[in-house]
Amino acid sequence: MNVGVLGAGQLGRMLALAGYPLGINVTCYDPGEDCCAAQVARHTRAPWDDRAALERFAKSVDVVTWEFENVPVATVEYVSMHAPVYPSINALAIGQDRLLEKRLFQRIGAGVHPYQPCGTPQEFDEALAAIGLPCIAKTRRFGYDGKGQCVMRTPEDVPAARAALGNHPCIIEQLVPFVAEVSAIAAADRAGTVVHYPVTQNTHTRGILHRSLAPAPCATPAIEAAAREVIAAAIHELRYVGVLAVEFFVTSAGELLVNEMAPRVHNSGHWTMDGAITGQFENHLRAVTGLPLGLTECRGGLPSVMFNIVGSVVDHHTLLQIPGLHLHDYGKAPRPGRKVAHATLHPVVSEWESLARHFDVR
Amino acid sequence: MNVGVLGAGQLGRMLALAGYPLGINVTCYDPGEDCCAAQVARHTRAPWDDRAALERFAKSVDVVTWEFENVPVATVEYVSMHAPVYPSINALAIGQDRLLEKRLFQRIGAGVHPYQPCGTPQEFDEALAAIGLPCIAKTRRFGYDGKGQCVMRTPEDVPAARAALGNHPCIIEQLVPFVAEVSAIAAADRAGTVVHYPVTQNTHTRGILHRSLAPAPCATPAIEAAAREVIAAAIHELRYVGVLAVEFFVTSAGELLVNEMAPRVHNSGHWTMDGAITGQFENHLRAVTGLPLGLTECRGGLPSVMFNIVGSVVDHHTLLQIPGLHLHDYGKAPRPGRKVAHATLHPVVSEWESLARHFDVR
Repeated sequence: MNVGVLGAGQLGRMLALAGYPLGINVTCYDPGEDCCAAQVARHTRAPWDDRAALERFAKSVDVVTWEFENVPVATVEYVSMHAPVYPSINALAIGQDRLLEKRLFQRIGAGVHPYQPCGTPQEFDEALAAIGLPCIAKTRRFGYDGKGQCVMRTPEDVPAARAALGNHPCIIEQLVPFVAEVSAIAAADRAGTVVHYPVTQNTHTRGILHRSLAPAPCATPAIEAAAREVIAAAIHELRYVGVLAVEFFVTSAGELLVNEMAPRVHNSGHWTMDGAITGQFENHLRAVTGLPLGLTECRGGLPSVMFNIVGSVVDHHTLLQIPGLHLHDYGKAPRPGRKVAHATLHPVVSEWESLARHFDVR
Repeated sequence: MNVGVLGAGQLGRMLALAGYPLGINVTCYDPGEDCCAAQVARHTRAPWDDRAALERFAKSVDVVTWEFENVPVATVEYVSMHAPVYPSINALAIGQDRLLEKRLFQRIGAGVHPYQPCGTPQEFDEALAAIGLPCIAKTRRFGYDGKGQCVMRTPEDVPAARAALGNHPCIIEQLVPFVAEVSAIAAADRAGTVVHYPVTQNTHTRGILHRSLAPAPCATPAIEAAAREVIAAAIHELRYVGVLAVEFFVTSAGELLVNEMAPRVHNSGHWTMDGAITGQFENHLRAVTGLPLGLTECRGGLPSVMFNIVGSVVDHHTLLQIPGLHLHDYGKAPRPGRKVAHATLHPVVSEWESLARHFDVR
């Protein structure tokens, strides 16, 4: 079985590595020169709008998916003329636009932060007046890891935010105090069967995910059930096939507000590679290729913690001295803010917090 | 870090796949045309005696190891002039010769079957007379998966065995009744630290490993300790670095008799990929590259079973419907007697024996 993956970053790399034991060979498609998935899989290097290359790529595989949510929708539409594509293109289009995303989650009855869209300086001011401080302006498109966002807590923060984003399609969103960030990750097969991973609790540093704990210590049965209900409804609404991630804020009242969704395998699900019976990369491949989904429970019923390694050289020797640590190096050169690897501890050891110093975000 | 692997079969493939998350890139060297490791790693295709190719290969990597125990010793000796090689070449040479192997295990005080070497029809008859029936004649070199062996239970079995093996360097070994076959797998680092996996219980069908259970149900603490003592002594004697496997027969008296050793990662250790905290492939790479060894305990303290898939097409859809099954497809075309994949169940489910029908040896 051959699977085409649009994008060739670390998510494509881990999809490829999850594929081999299943007899699945991945070909990545990415215009980039130095793609870490290309170290472990075939790589078609061509622009997103190269129709001849896209057609050859699509015809060389049995099914196409993506690992990068900013693949142009037109690219995926063109590919879908030559190969089956999962998840639905609609999910990709919605995942690329915060306003469409908000509307999706409102439509299925999920809690979202009060927000208003804007696209001109005048609309920016109107939205700001409607939502009030503190709030956050976010570009509708191409934001990730905290990029394309301006927080406004006091009137002094407004001019810079307005200058930066006032002419862009944005949403202005109320800043609601929260006690925890969690994410729900589920996989859906072509028949609509949905399997849920335990909800994960996430901690960000400077907008980048620093660590995830699974199952989420904050997740009461009510929170777990509410998160599963939202993601299952989104899957149903989108006719989604594959792994879907939805991030939530948990308010002090225990309410869940959707932050965003990722129509793909997700960083907060990396713990599943070592900590769940079937990892998210394997389940995504099983879903898009029509294979049965695998169990999503924690291995041995034991919890996991995942740390990102961001912006620093991976010190293999020091890290691998930590008992029970599983390293996942992406084969990338370090740059500030760049995710170069992650590590999991499964099962979590009691001193895991003292180990966090090895994983400072740089 | 770049590791050269002599041989490019499924063991090389799984070494390569275990390497990527550690930031280790594997290059395999193998004269074969259709090597399954070449699907996932770089492959130098050249004869075992091509000195120029061997030198280029050795100089392109940081350390060299092997996945195939019949690599010519002269090849490894030549490679060792251009790159560090682990395990010791001595271990490879001994592993290739049943007589040297017997003598090694006798030297370190391990139990072995009564045996006598022979190499001519006359020596064959003398050895047969000394050992008596029932016995087994085995070629000293190039035997695996039951090949190069003749069992003699009655005088009628002798002429065919003598005709087949009478002119080959062999050993004739007493057939001792046994109640179980087990294997010990350990990893040793360059400093001599040894970590042991739980002893595994193996069942063969027509000379090919069919399944392994870990920990071995038959392994009393005394058996576990005795097996560890033998493998630790062999590691010490051989100055061994990497993963070593030793197969034993367990007699009805609970005595261990060494069957053979494999100076490499081993089929009976495949359960460790899913069932141990650190798999054997990862620990072999950690050992030969000088990284710290990983924990060898069962994940969550829970047992595993591993089934080989031999000679049949891998039916992904049926197998992946089995809850908790982990599939490892080798990307090989099926042929009778050929290992094309394995599957593990971790944790073992109560009905595992009824699942064995999916894994008939063909």
